[in-house]
Amino acid sequence: MARAEEEAACLEQTQRYCVQRPIYNQELLQGQLHRRQRTPQTLGQKIAQSCRCSSKKAKSHLYSFLPILKWLPRYPVKEYLLGDIISGVSTGIMQLPQGLAYALLAAVPPVFGLYSSFYPVFLYTFFGTSRHISIGTFAVVSMMIGGVAVREVPEEIIPLDFNSTNITDVLEYYSAKDTKRVQVAVALAFLSGLIQLCLGFLRFGFVAIYLTEPLVRGFTTAAAVHVFVSQLKYLLGIQTCRYSGPLSVVYTLAAVFSKITTTNIAALIVGLTCIVLLLIGKTINLRFKKKLPVPIPMEIIVVIIGTGVSAGMNLNESYKVNIVGNIPQGLRAPAVPEIHLSPAILGDAVAIAIVGFSMAVSMAKIFALKHGYTINGNQELIALGICNSVGSFFQTFPVTCSMSRSLVQESTGGKTQIAGALSAVMVLLVIVAIGYLFEPLPQAVLAGIVMVNLKGMLKQFKDISRFWRTSKIELAIWVVAFVASLFLGLDYGLLTAVTFAIITVIYRTQSPEYRILGQIPNTDIYCDVEEYEEVKEYPGIKIFQANTSLYFANSESYRNALKKKTGVDPSALLAARRKAQKRHAREIKAANEHRKKAVLKLVSSSTNDVEASAKHEIASDDLPVNGKFADSSVQDTSLDEHEHFVEPKTNIHSLILDFTPVNFVDSVGAKTLKLIIKKYNEVGVYVCIASCSDPVTNEMTRLNFFDKSVTRELLFHSIHDAVLACQVKHGSAAQADSNL
Amino acid sequence: MARAEEEAACLEQTQRYCVQRPIYNQELLQGQLHRRQRTPQTLGQKIAQSCRCSSKKAKSHLYSFLPILKWLPRYPVKEYLLGDIISGVSTGIMQLPQGLAYALLAAVPPVFGLYSSFYPVFLYTFFGTSRHISIGTFAVVSMMIGGVAVREVPEEIIPLDFNSTNITDVLEYYSAKDTKRVQVAVALAFLSGLIQLCLGFLRFGFVAIYLTEPLVRGFTTAAAVHVFVSQLKYLLGIQTCRYSGPLSVVYTLAAVFSKITTTNIAALIVGLTCIVLLLIGKTINLRFKKKLPVPIPMEIIVVIIGTGVSAGMNLNESYKVNIVGNIPQGLRAPAVPEIHLSPAILGDAVAIAIVGFSMAVSMAKIFALKHGYTINGNQELIALGICNSVGSFFQTFPVTCSMSRSLVQESTGGKTQIAGALSAVMVLLVIVAIGYLFEPLPQAVLAGIVMVNLKGMLKQFKDISRFWRTSKIELAIWVVAFVASLFLGLDYGLLTAVTFAIITVIYRTQSPEYRILGQIPNTDIYCDVEEYEEVKEYPGIKIFQANTSLYFANSESYRNALKKKTGVDPSALLAARRKAQKRHAREIKAANEHRKKAVLKLVSSSTNDVEASAKHEIASDDLPVNGKFADSSVQDTSLDEHEHFVEPKTNIHSLILDFTPVNFVDSVGAKTLKLIIKKYNEVGVYVCIASCSDPVTNEMTRLNFFDKSVTRELLFHSIHDAVLACQVKHGSAAQADSNL
Repeated sequence: MARAEEEAACLEQTQRYCVQRPIYNQELLQGQLHRRQRTPQTLGQKIAQSCRCSSKKAKSHLYSFLPILKWLPRYPVKEYLLGDIISGVSTGIMQLPQGLAYALLAAVPPVFGLYSSFYPVFLYTFFGTSRHISIGTFAVVSMMIGGVAVREVPEEIIPLDFNSTNITDVLEYYSAKDTKRVQVAVALAFLSGLIQLCLGFLRFGFVAIYLTEPLVRGFTTAAAVHVFVSQLKYLLGIQTCRYSGPLSVVYTLAAVFSKITTTNIAALIVGLTCIVLLLIGKTINLRFKKKLPVPIPMEIIVVIIGTGVSAGMNLNESYKVNIVGNIPQGLRAPAVPEIHLSPAILGDAVAIAIVGFSMAVSMAKIFALKHGYTINGNQELIALGICNSVGSFFQTFPVTCSMSRSLVQESTGGKTQIAGALSAVMVLLVIVAIGYLFEPLPQAVLAGIVMVNLKGMLKQFKDISRFWRTSKIELAIWVVAFVASLFLGLDYGLLTAVTFAIITVIYRTQSPEYRILGQIPNTDIYCDVEEYEEVKEYPGIKIFQANTSLYFANSESYRNALKKKTGVDPSALLAARRKAQKRHAREIKAANEHRKKAVLKLVSSSTNDVEASAKHEIASDDLPVNGKFADSSVQDTSLDEHEHFVEPKTNIHSLILDFTPVNFVDSVGAKTLKLIIKKYNEVGVYVCIASCSDPVTNEMTRLNFFDKSVTRELLFHSIHDAVLACQVKHGSAAQADSNL
Repeated sequence: MARAEEEAACLEQTQRYCVQRPIYNQELLQGQLHRRQRTPQTLGQKIAQSCRCSSKKAKSHLYSFLPILKWLPRYPVKEYLLGDIISGVSTGIMQLPQGLAYALLAAVPPVFGLYSSFYPVFLYTFFGTSRHISIGTFAVVSMMIGGVAVREVPEEIIPLDFNSTNITDVLEYYSAKDTKRVQVAVALAFLSGLIQLCLGFLRFGFVAIYLTEPLVRGFTTAAAVHVFVSQLKYLLGIQTCRYSGPLSVVYTLAAVFSKITTTNIAALIVGLTCIVLLLIGKTINLRFKKKLPVPIPMEIIVVIIGTGVSAGMNLNESYKVNIVGNIPQGLRAPAVPEIHLSPAILGDAVAIAIVGFSMAVSMAKIFALKHGYTINGNQELIALGICNSVGSFFQTFPVTCSMSRSLVQESTGGKTQIAGALSAVMVLLVIVAIGYLFEPLPQAVLAGIVMVNLKGMLKQFKDISRFWRTSKIELAIWVVAFVASLFLGLDYGLLTAVTFAIITVIYRTQSPEYRILGQIPNTDIYCDVEEYEEVKEYPGIKIFQANTSLYFANSESYRNALKKKTGVDPSALLAARRKAQKRHAREIKAANEHRKKAVLKLVSSSTNDVEASAKHEIASDDLPVNGKFADSSVQDTSLDEHEHFVEPKTNIHSLILDFTPVNFVDSVGAKTLKLIIKKYNEVGVYVCIASCSDPVTNEMTRLNFFDKSVTRELLFHSIHDAVLACQVKHGSAAQADSNL
């Protein structure tokens, strides 16, 4: 008690850091402490506990599965409803053109884009936990669907005759290629929904964490380039094949340029006009954000103008401009998805499921943070899974949240999932009532809308310079994600990028920085000796640190770095010692023979040799020698080399391995460590370990690291403890030596 | 100086740990230190330096590429030669039967096994750095070759008529299926050699580190089972197809059992006799290790007896026992490998190259450690690469070091690569002179030899119980490597196992242990509060530690664990505060109205409400509240809940994040950290970071972590520094409060 008071006094008087305590190694410390008694739960108890059922538990499960039950009864109508209505209408207006445009991207007829903008959006209201994200069609996912649809149902099957106005032709067209592509897209929705559901129920929401920010940004940038390139043909009004798979972006570009002479000027003019209008609208919305009650719905204005102009001027027949074409009225009867397609598209479904989920969750997290509520990653997975899998029975393709729409939904004052439901109702109205009005809409207009929506994603190219400044490794992840996704296709690209991101983590742990530490005088602080001028090393003590855990991938390099940094190589030292002993024996023998001869000749001539052999004796007994030995090939020992043998430059008696950065050790690491301790002990260097954390100590105990020769006394609480102990040990050893 | 002396005195007197210094944060510490001036080398200088050529450098390069130039001139004939000769002859005697047997495994005619036991072994003498490993045929690699050969040239092409003694038949047989299989095996040798060479020149020797011990042991155990199963048919003398690819081991077993009735009793007797003899031989060699000058060459004895018996009793014709058959005399003219096969076998070649290399290097390392010399991993790769690629021009299949032979080579007194060269010469003699003598050797004898050689590898099943005790993660790696290699085949199995091993590292970093630390009284030592009874927390200060680096895969869980462990959830707190404020405003309004009414009625009736609202005010202003708030759905506030609001159980004013275990931070981690600091500051909790290492600090600086609000003053040198600083800060803040 007295000391504690003294210490407290010391603190108040000087506001200094003062500590006085014994030098602690693990053995000593553990001896003074008492482990808390904890009776670990048996497996049976655990199971019983997790299986126990109560009405409260059931209610909480129900609430978590159907969040609407929780928030709808408490919906503050007066406060929220107006905002939700304005937001719902604004978002619904955006759903329409985006649904049509992204359906083109997904290589299915436009009406399926409308279906996908209705059913899933409506379902999300019941199951979703995010109040602000707008579920529906999304460019990147649509692009991925399009890739699969084109791969599974190639262009060649039927010649492209989309321009045909003969209604039976169009129907026939629908009934062959497009029907098949719709089947593929719907099967994809079903499968990816199922995968998301499974992942959600298995609580695998965490997979999204592997999609680190640079990876997602690189990936979406590549997707934006894909989308942009795929829209060129619609903007220019030319007819080319659609490509999928690796290098498709290159083939598509080549195809577009090879046919650039067939550009439809009318389509191009319409498309460019739209783009200009949309860009102006975006700029106005951005600049007068605060003054405008709701953003100008430029997209729907452009669609209406485009449709009007196209119908009025009969662009399709007079100028051969491609139009959206047949939009059937009303909804379709539900049908079971073509599950037999699954084997061919399983991999794609996984990729779409994960990309879709990670997009939705990352947006949802941003809004949740901003508005101070929490979202549940696993419930989001389940919600998306239901949206996709149930939706697929109504011919939707895979959906997720769209960045542009979500921003509109939030900024126009949306407060709850009601806004999303209202936007779905808007889409429903169009489907059942006025969908056919959009039939004359030129495809170039949709292409324009898609391209302008890519602006934000294409701006991500600026990331390169940012990551260059902040982190080369993250830049590498960005570039790999971008390049791989651009050239290998989005699915393989994503896989490559995730693999690469994981490997960077391994890389960080396996090529650490190795440092020799020294003390800042009069403190217990140890820093890199190469970094600061003030830092000093204690004579005879080397402190070695690697900023990583010790495991199979870096044990070898740890050992090598230790040799190099401390300048002590036990194997070389031992070999040299053995050699020196052998030579010494030989020379003694030679000297003896020489002496015998000399006795026959002259007595004085042999003294030199004896001296030399005596020197050797010193070299071979004086153990801690610094540096690698001269090449073992040296046969004639000149005087210079004698000096090298005889005078070790630094006398290292102790080696402290700083284990502060070590978070885990595996069997290879433990073996390496034991080997290091043994080898250095053999050449007379005492090895101890500083700041080994409790979990690591326990791990090493399990790995049978400690035995008679390697005890817990080697583990010190801190570097300073270890240094003090080494000094004490060496001091007493030196004293014992001098006493002898 | 005075203090240093005082400190030294303190040390000598008490052998205690005494430190007295200011409380250091990064800002203060950096201010007192001077960075060493280091002029970094420019890229030009670096290039110039690495390109500079000197005769010394050239010599060292030559020596490292052709180690024989270094050791042969200094070969101590008197000391080493006898040992090398005995060892060479012993190893050579083992090369013979193993070469024949492993050729069967590799699905090529036996003579190619002899070729593979000669050329590469001879070449290794010149390029290898290990003095004790015996290069040549190896069961696991041969098994892999066999898998590829059978896959590329399936059994069905030609009916199995190995029994035919008609020489033209045999030749024809050779000229079709076997010729093709040899081509595949030779192309594999060429390709895998080329890959090894490339990896060696690119200094990629480190890839072997990913093959951690449990992985290699699991993999080789599976390989042993594969080999064992594949030998059953030879032992039983039955005719079945050879399978390759996933589940081949199951198919092979099924095929063997379905034909078990056709067992050739004579072959079985011969085989079992061999096995018994070999096991006896092994036991004798083990028991009388010290007494025997050289181990009994049981394998060659068995081969000789087997050949003799087979020839004498004419086993092939009388009992239909399968024999080795045609062994052509002499060597073959060199020929270019069939490179056009490459695309189909590239993946297998990579697998074989890596497995071969890692086997050789791990054996070489063991011997190098034992005998105190060093091997060079990259040069080993180059040496193996030359053995395989050059050898392939002489019809060898891929080789590596064999465990059993290497042990014999070392234990019989081999000192240098000369022993290996002599064993090659032995094989050469057999090839050119007496090879044909082995033609009547029954295949069952070879099967017996192979099976007995698997004993060591099959013993590795004991690993399971060992790893169960030491490390569950390593057990998982072993099991995955074993199961995957057994059922998916060795190539995919290896890939799966390596991927899994890498993922375990990610797993370790992404699901760390989260702990709250407390102080051991009167020391600067902080431990898990749940672990020891003595450990105490400072009131108002929480110290949080996660034993991992902070990066994309664990930032999210870090934040969640922080909330859970400290019991402070800033978002919930803020939301609750906002709600309370709102309610408070409402209640004040209501109270006012009430009061107005009350004034009209009775004065005393409104006091209760005013009290309640006053309590709310306290709750909303008194920021650091412990624990999650009651569900925000609570609408009717009972008195109990008032108490929950009003009386925070612990007043946390400071949160210390222990960054001792953090070795790197990425942008996601830095953002998370900044968010934590911001959010907790908002609710009045001061966040600081303890023991952040220099590399991490630099990384965070690059990631723009520090700005006006987050400065380096938040970084403290140690937990104790941070605790003291927090106490000082809180003390003065409290004082200021009381002064107001």
